[in-house]
Amino acid sequence: MLGEEAPIACCAPLAAAVLDEHEAEATAELFGALADPARVRIVNTLATSPGPVCACEFEPALGLSQPTVSHHLKRLTEAGLLEREQRGRWAYFSLRRDAVEKLAAVADLKGACC
Amino acid sequence: MLGEEAPIACCAPLAAAVLDEHEAEATAELFGALADPARVRIVNTLATSPGPVCACEFEPALGLSQPTVSHHLKRLTEAGLLEREQRGRWAYFSLRRDAVEKLAAVADLKGACC
Repeated sequence: MLGEEAPIACCAPLAAAVLDEHEAEATAELFGALADPARVRIVNTLATSPGPVCACEFEPALGLSQPTVSHHLKRLTEAGLLEREQRGRWAYFSLRRDAVEKLAAVADLKGACC
Repeated sequence: MLGEEAPIACCAPLAAAVLDEHEAEATAELFGALADPARVRIVNTLATSPGPVCACEFEPALGLSQPTVSHHLKRLTEAGLLEREQRGRWAYFSLRRDAVEKLAAVADLKGACC
């Protein structure tokens, strides 16, 4: 789809019976996308917002410069966690529903899988 | 307890209603512990093993040197994810049950909390 990154499709759950090197790398990549306080706060904001959030709102909320916010939004979008929608001059972001499911499955060490 | 790191106690779920800067950092730190393919494979091995695993088993399984394996095991233990038990000259590792629960709760964006 136009303007969308590919969904998370490659990583395997931490509790997968067999985990090859490629899957381990993809899973580590997904966790790496969340291994930053600013990105955790962006995801938290989106998780607790009723609708898409304008990129312009993160700058004051996080106390970060616009290029830094853009970098974090790009990283999260590339990891397949966010959906980006252009509205005029601003981009709006929301959590991808499939990413939410996938992250919970990957982090579930109790054995439930996707 | 002797020989144990503190459990994961500080990080907040990604979907927490309010997430302060300290909690965001702790949550990012937890994800950072899993943002490496070797550490993902260690956790995967422990998640699929019936009992504690000797540190000596990871070296051949991961194709990494002993110091590198030790570094990864230390990082995971410090993050509160692993329990370390000394048996003679070798250390044995297992997943902490509370960490398993905590990780699933932190990564659950669907709203369920700890």
